[in-house]
Amino acid sequence: MIAHIPLNAHPNPKRVLVVGGGDGGVLREVTKHECVEKIDIVEIDDSVVRLAKQYLPDMAKGYNDPRITLHITDGFDFLRTKTAEYDVIISDTSDPEGPAEVLFQEEYFRLLDNALTEKGVISMMASENVWLKVTVLEKLRATCKNVFPTVEYAYTCVPTYTSGQLGLMICSKDAANDVTTPTRLWDREVEASINRYYNREIHRASFVIPTFARRYLA
Amino acid sequence: MIAHIPLNAHPNPKRVLVVGGGDGGVLREVTKHECVEKIDIVEIDDSVVRLAKQYLPDMAKGYNDPRITLHITDGFDFLRTKTAEYDVIISDTSDPEGPAEVLFQEEYFRLLDNALTEKGVISMMASENVWLKVTVLEKLRATCKNVFPTVEYAYTCVPTYTSGQLGLMICSKDAANDVTTPTRLWDREVEASINRYYNREIHRASFVIPTFARRYLA
Repeated sequence: MIAHIPLNAHPNPKRVLVVGGGDGGVLREVTKHECVEKIDIVEIDDSVVRLAKQYLPDMAKGYNDPRITLHITDGFDFLRTKTAEYDVIISDTSDPEGPAEVLFQEEYFRLLDNALTEKGVISMMASENVWLKVTVLEKLRATCKNVFPTVEYAYTCVPTYTSGQLGLMICSKDAANDVTTPTRLWDREVEASINRYYNREIHRASFVIPTFARRYLA
Repeated sequence: MIAHIPLNAHPNPKRVLVVGGGDGGVLREVTKHECVEKIDIVEIDDSVVRLAKQYLPDMAKGYNDPRITLHITDGFDFLRTKTAEYDVIISDTSDPEGPAEVLFQEEYFRLLDNALTEKGVISMMASENVWLKVTVLEKLRATCKNVFPTVEYAYTCVPTYTSGQLGLMICSKDAANDVTTPTRLWDREVEASINRYYNREIHRASFVIPTFARRYLA
């Protein structure tokens, strides 16, 4: 979902950056999009990549795609050198509390914004969900709004996460982009054969939240 | 959700039966629907009612509504005396494994069917969800399909349940009733002021399931 929602919300994504996501799971999903020509991944810790290849081969198989270039370095440093290079950036990082805190702050979003092409879309792991810390999401959404004209909260169901949900923030540089509706679609049969979770209906449904959460997130 | 989905999927529900649900939570939600004229609840264990009123007053406040009649008896025995009496029946029972097992079998669904009026709708706690025992849901759906022409799986997010979801089966005697779309709606403001979870968008979204689950449930 963290890959398919922004990719299918972009009109024609050719260049994609993954920040974090060293396990290769996001890469595996990105490679399902044939329109994508180039995929950069910037991971700070090479042991994540090595261990994923050794112990999580089904995730790490994403690395086998020739469109991928792996950069072992700090995401901040990498982004500072990039301007208008990526159509989609997927920020697959740790929780907002702890060492990854800076990846949930405005300076980081400004770097993402600068690295995006004109109609660029980002998605980021928001880690929290409406049940646990809806006010953390509210603050994160407000920070994103300082940078991006379009900001929408989505969630995906992950049974092993606390309370069963994982929140995402989907942002676009294009104020007219309704990211809640997929603009590009696989054929129905292809969609069903390559995705265990994602489908066009679940794209839309993932933006629908309970009434109590709306005053924080909509 | 177990109350609002069937009530809003029925064109004009006047008489409602709740089977189980002695804690009063479902009653509380049913009473939000002004079109409902009569609400019967059949609960096998009067101590559930007593203890809910004592310790869960916010749930049990549903009992304060004058439209409600409480019947302390076995749901099977009660249903055997009813023919074409209810527009909506909500089966808020325990898990399919254990003492409530008979409430997930065809004989029970035939009693529900017989107790419903012409365009009657039921909802039932399916307890399982797509993550844990999708084949139990598949079997339950098939059993419902033996009795009702319209059977749809829905889910609601409950952070305290295992893996964060609770499944529901929504069935209608009317083959033409698309229960996934609400036919009756509160005004938006009323909807938001009386419901913490339910809204018209979440009604539709609750029927959207991951790709892997579709071959079992759609």
